[in-house]
Order: sequence, then C-alpha cells, then structure tokens
Amino acid sequence: MTDLILTTFDWVPEMPRGFVRDLRVRWALEEAGLPYRVESVPFRDRGAEHFSHQPFGQVPWLTDGDFSIFESGAILLHLGVYSDALMPVDPRARSEVIEWLFAALNSVEMAVLPWALIMFTGDTEETPGRKMLDKFLDTRLKHMETVLAEREWLAGAFSVADILMADVLRLADRFDGLTRHPACRGYVARATARPSFVKAHADQMAHFAAAD
Amino acid sequence: MTDLILTTFDWVPEMPRGFVRDLRVRWALEEAGLPYRVESVPFRDRGAEHFSHQPFGQVPWLTDGDFSIFESGAILLHLGVYSDALMPVDPRARSEVIEWLFAALNSVEMAVLPWALIMFTGDTEETPGRKMLDKFLDTRLKHMETVLAEREWLAGAFSVADILMADVLRLADRFDGLTRHPACRGYVARATARPSFVKAHADQMAHFAAAD
Repeated sequence: MTDLILTTFDWVPEMPRGFVRDLRVRWALEEAGLPYRVESVPFRDRGAEHFSHQPFGQVPWLTDGDFSIFESGAILLHLGVYSDALMPVDPRARSEVIEWLFAALNSVEMAVLPWALIMFTGDTEETPGRKMLDKFLDTRLKHMETVLAEREWLAGAFSVADILMADVLRLADRFDGLTRHPACRGYVARATARPSFVKAHADQMAHFAAAD
Repeated sequence: MTDLILTTFDWVPEMPRGFVRDLRVRWALEEAGLPYRVESVPFRDRGAEHFSHQPFGQVPWLTDGDFSIFESGAILLHLGVYSDALMPVDPRARSEVIEWLFAALNSVEMAVLPWALIMFTGDTEETPGRKMLDKFLDTRLKHMETVLAEREWLAGAFSVADILMADVLRLADRFDGLTRHPACRGYVARATARPSFVKAHADQMAHFAAAD
C-alpha cells in the first residue's frame, strides 16, 4: 500500500453536505485505521483532469500509488483487501460481503436515489410513474426490513457492505422514507453511532464549511 | 470450479423477456465458454427457499459449489476470476474493469432504470420530479457518449464491464432513450452483435417461451 489520497469537491451547496459520497470512503478508511489525506477539485469548474479521473464529473476518487479508482463501490472493494475490519479474508464470508455491497448499490440505492431526487424537488403529484417508483422503493425496503429484523450487520461482522447499505438507507431516512421500517431505522442508528462514521461525517462537514 | 448453476424464473410476462437479468450471467458464461446449467424457481409463488438465495425475491442467483451468489454485479465479478475473456489478470487492468462494472450499475443503471419504469407506465406528465429524473439520465448519457465516442470497449478489451454497460444502455434504447446518443447506440449494437449475446438472448427467450 502506498499513500492513499481521497479526492472530493472543494465545496458543495448546503443540501448535499453530509451526503457527498466521499463520506463512504472516509468511513471505510477510518474503520480500517488507514492513513490518508484529502485533496479537492473545483465544484464549479470541472476540467479535463477531473473527467480523466471520474468520467461523470462526480466525486470521489481514490489514488493509491499507480491506481486511480472511481465509483464508491469499487473504492470500498479495493480498500477491503487491506483490512479485515472492512472485508473478511475467508472466501465464502468475503463473497457474502461482496453480494451485499452490490445489493446496497444496485438493489436498494437504485430505488432510494430516484425517489430522493423527486422528494428533493418537493414534487407531490401522484402520477403513474411516481406511483411506480414509490412502489419500487417500498418493496425493496420491505425486504430489507425482513433482513435487518434478524441481524445486526448484513454479513456476519460489520463490513464495507454495511457502510454502503447504511449510507443508502440514511438517504431514505432523510426524507422520512423509513417511518414504517423500524428495523431499517435501527440499523442506520447503529451504523451511524460508530466512531468512524461520526468522525467521517464531521470531517466532511468541516471540509465543505472551510470553503464557505 | 465446480458445477455452475444459474437460477432464474420459470416464466415471466412478455414485457421483461429479453431483459431479465439472468441474461447478463448467461452472456458472461457464454463469453468465457464455461459449462453451466439453468434451473428455475416459480415466478408466481416465491417461497422461503427463494428468499434464502435472493433476499429481494428477484433473479438470478448463481450456485458454484458451496457458494450461492445473488446480484448480477457480484456474480460477474465472481465469474471474472475464471477467465481473462471476462476480466484481465493484470491488477491495474482488472481494477479498471471493476470501476466500470460499478459505473454501469451505480452511475448509469441508477439513472436508466427509474426512467424506464416511468416510461413503462406510459406516464408523460412533466412534473418537477420527472424533469429531475430526465435530467439525471440525460447528464449520465452525455458523459457516456463522450467516453464511448473514443473507445470500442470500456476498459481495453471486452470485459464483464461491457456486458453490464451494454445491457443497461440496451434498456434505455428500448424506450428510445439513445436517439441523441449515437456512440452509445453504436456500442450497444457492437456488444449485442457478439455471438455470446445472441445465444444468451435466444436462450432466455426460449426458456420463458417454453413455459407459456
């Protein structure tokens, strides 16, 4: 392992603060106790250099020696190999973590994020499309409620899968999407009470506040 | 490697045929020339055994000896290790494939799928929420257009990342979402012309038709 450098925006508006995806990487790095430093790219003026690291003009990306990695899921998978606080070494246990890591992003966030984007606009119109997306989210949360009613963490011990799933469910909770899902809420509370989350969150808030 | 068993539904309605996610796994297995067999679970009656393999009641899952893996992304990552037709061995090249694999699912499908669900309902109301999701998709496709205008495949040679990205863009194309994105359309045409896709697609269609 070489120097780990996490790149995020230099500043973002109030609304996304506390939810910018560098949080997931900070959280993982804190859980594993890995040394890292944070660098910034302009939020307002995203140039060719930015797109060469992150082709959607988003953040974060992680630099690890010769590696420059975008996508929070790919970054957490990469970091997982450095610490069994993030991902177990046993192949079957690791496989379980990896499937839940994908589930957080592709089965749950894919339902939560569009819903949150609609909620963000304040739109309350019950169009057929809106009803479809509400039902999509509701079904996914119902199944997560069943899963989380029976276990503390997704795959045995706390892992990168929990970092992603808790962060995704936290976004639903922000717009009161978990009121009928107490096990999901309890899980978010449990995950975000971890000192590593508290530090990662405070660090992100301080990072953006410093640019105001 | 032991016997590979791909589990999908015994039947689905006309609409999703050709787009059920077992296609991604079939495609990867065909690309790698790995032997496998397909098993079915009831579409209409999803029991505890089904949920023990796939906690959202969806398909597919892959059985590989003692491993039972859900999430198409996790399955393709698992299979990638078996063949450099799916994922290169070199660590940097592999890392690039993995970040694009996540990008397909978490940056592009997360914008395409909710939009496709709305299109599926026939909803044409231009609510603020709808406009937000249209813009979300449009921005992501714009960036993919830039990427795909410059390269044949996402990460050097064809890989699991292309299987996922092409399958995701194919869904946008189904609802005419790529009309202003010729490089994306060309990429989908290139990917779906591969004999492995043609066979995987025909096999899925035949599988569901057999149950009619």
